[in-house]
Amino acid sequence: MEERKLHVDAGAGYDILIAPGLLDGAGKHIKAALPKAKRLFVVTDSNVSPLYGARLVASLEIESFEVHTHVIPAGETSKSAENLVALWEWMTAHGITRTDGVVALGGGVTGDLAGFAASTVLRGVDLVQIPTTLLSQVDSSVGGKTAIDLGTGKNLAGTFFQPKLVLMDPETLRTLPPPVFMAGMAEVIKYGCIWDADFFDFLAQRPTRDKLMADIGRILYTCCDIKRRVVNEDEHDTGLRMILNFGHTLGHAYELAGDYEKWSHGEAVAAGMVTAARLGAELGVTEPDVPERIAEVLAPLGLPTHIDCDFAHIEKAVGIDKKSAGDSVTLILLEKIGCVRPLKLPKEDVLELMAKTAGR
Amino acid sequence: MEERKLHVDAGAGYDILIAPGLLDGAGKHIKAALPKAKRLFVVTDSNVSPLYGARLVASLEIESFEVHTHVIPAGETSKSAENLVALWEWMTAHGITRTDGVVALGGGVTGDLAGFAASTVLRGVDLVQIPTTLLSQVDSSVGGKTAIDLGTGKNLAGTFFQPKLVLMDPETLRTLPPPVFMAGMAEVIKYGCIWDADFFDFLAQRPTRDKLMADIGRILYTCCDIKRRVVNEDEHDTGLRMILNFGHTLGHAYELAGDYEKWSHGEAVAAGMVTAARLGAELGVTEPDVPERIAEVLAPLGLPTHIDCDFAHIEKAVGIDKKSAGDSVTLILLEKIGCVRPLKLPKEDVLELMAKTAGR
Repeated sequence: MEERKLHVDAGAGYDILIAPGLLDGAGKHIKAALPKAKRLFVVTDSNVSPLYGARLVASLEIESFEVHTHVIPAGETSKSAENLVALWEWMTAHGITRTDGVVALGGGVTGDLAGFAASTVLRGVDLVQIPTTLLSQVDSSVGGKTAIDLGTGKNLAGTFFQPKLVLMDPETLRTLPPPVFMAGMAEVIKYGCIWDADFFDFLAQRPTRDKLMADIGRILYTCCDIKRRVVNEDEHDTGLRMILNFGHTLGHAYELAGDYEKWSHGEAVAAGMVTAARLGAELGVTEPDVPERIAEVLAPLGLPTHIDCDFAHIEKAVGIDKKSAGDSVTLILLEKIGCVRPLKLPKEDVLELMAKTAGR
Repeated sequence: MEERKLHVDAGAGYDILIAPGLLDGAGKHIKAALPKAKRLFVVTDSNVSPLYGARLVASLEIESFEVHTHVIPAGETSKSAENLVALWEWMTAHGITRTDGVVALGGGVTGDLAGFAASTVLRGVDLVQIPTTLLSQVDSSVGGKTAIDLGTGKNLAGTFFQPKLVLMDPETLRTLPPPVFMAGMAEVIKYGCIWDADFFDFLAQRPTRDKLMADIGRILYTCCDIKRRVVNEDEHDTGLRMILNFGHTLGHAYELAGDYEKWSHGEAVAAGMVTAARLGAELGVTEPDVPERIAEVLAPLGLPTHIDCDFAHIEKAVGIDKKSAGDSVTLILLEKIGCVRPLKLPKEDVLELMAKTAGR
């Protein structure tokens, strides 16, 4: 069995383990990482629970953990304040102590919600992430961001909180519906765009899910390794980490425009990257062939390379975006594939540029 | 004007300023501590708002801050998940950015709730604490603990989060109802018990509110200085800081027994300290005259030295207490006045001892 391991220095430091079949060995690894824990609070969703819940719980109970499980409805709407409060009440009603742990089994919604709950119940207990989607494996496993959505927008409340361990079983990706797998690929391709031209080419040569899955261990490792390098230097998201948001401000606008239903996060980011590259070309920052090259990698995977969006949604996404400090906005642009260039501009200039380049 | 200043090293480090009339100079100090902030989100309660809200807002607006104010109902029930979510929605609806700030004006409830909201909105914005009660000035200003209550118990969700500045105007204590002032004195006396026998004697010689107010600057400074020394060594509450809980486990039991209505936190802690001293004497750890000496300082201030409590409430307080890691409990005992001694015992032994010494 091919096993990969990455150490992340953020927080107290933790390991990311990547191996097919790892789910069945979760108990052993968690026992080693959380030696004092007696109770584990597993949070999962209604899609993942029937597929992998029983296997995880069995592997935990072999190690004599007292296991409690909470299943949230699958979908973004579960990342709510209501569910956060429900998790707090559930954990404390079952006598959680400060040496117990929370295990998040599922995608980004589960990880963000369970992570926020773990970071705040009793002012913080240990967290283990077991991401089961491509997006959460390459995006949420490193960085220590937790969040819920509010009525006013996505991810507007949360914490910076590092897990004690991340376990990734690539086999769990086989049960993902095609659009969900492909949405994760948008973030995978992003890592190539901002950091690693060779990795971008490697992905360009694998235009189908089967070809990608044949090298999935390397793909997961490479993405997590890039994110680790970025986050190690910027644990609290005040500088370098913003390069990870390439394509994301416009992506947020597209998600807003589609009322978070028409376009998934990954689809919105895919189109956002192409448009951000066009913005950069317009400004003379990005080499002119970059938008087309990105589109050529996205399109075979069924990812959108353009999304219609009216200006009001762009304005809202730029205005509410957490990255906007005061009245200026930092655009994340590329110089070329593999080479990122953040550019700080007055909010008005950014909006004007977007109206011209990205509007309907 | 007598001004005192303490620097606390926790987090990024911050100053505590203590001076009569400081409220009217708040804007100037906040401008210096939060140079990038444009918007300030003032959280206060229905008691404090009519007394000091307008003066604070005026002092902030002189410095050209855009000020938004949210008034919560006075009382412990406001420290709720519902109010936390309402604060998040309010701040984000008014366009808070990561360089803006939250100002908590009021007692411990306001500080805990607003602090939790500040630490989590946009994953954390700057916080200024302006405590206006004796309890919050000596207890909540140092330590960086924020929290809300859940249906399952008090302070069960929260964060460790250091403010950027703490402003204390002792003049605000003059409007406190006598029981609220005296409840704060229980915590003041606690600092003498656990750390400083001279300070204990100093307090013993000032058995009235007027006499205490004549030296209030020194009293506030001494308490914050002791808490600062303790917290500096234990920012995340894993060791030394537990000595600050002297009298608090039993205090929680008394609060539970009175359904959080019959006894205030300070009153419960007062009786809890006397009973904890009796427990220590029973174990041979505490000098036999200590319970009586503590009672003699509390009684003239109208604070209870004994509260009837059935065993079920003690059991619940010991069980749910965040300090209980696994199956052992650390009792915070005194050797003598000014000298604390934590003692770790199996939970069963503690309960048996409490049934014998502290039960009805």
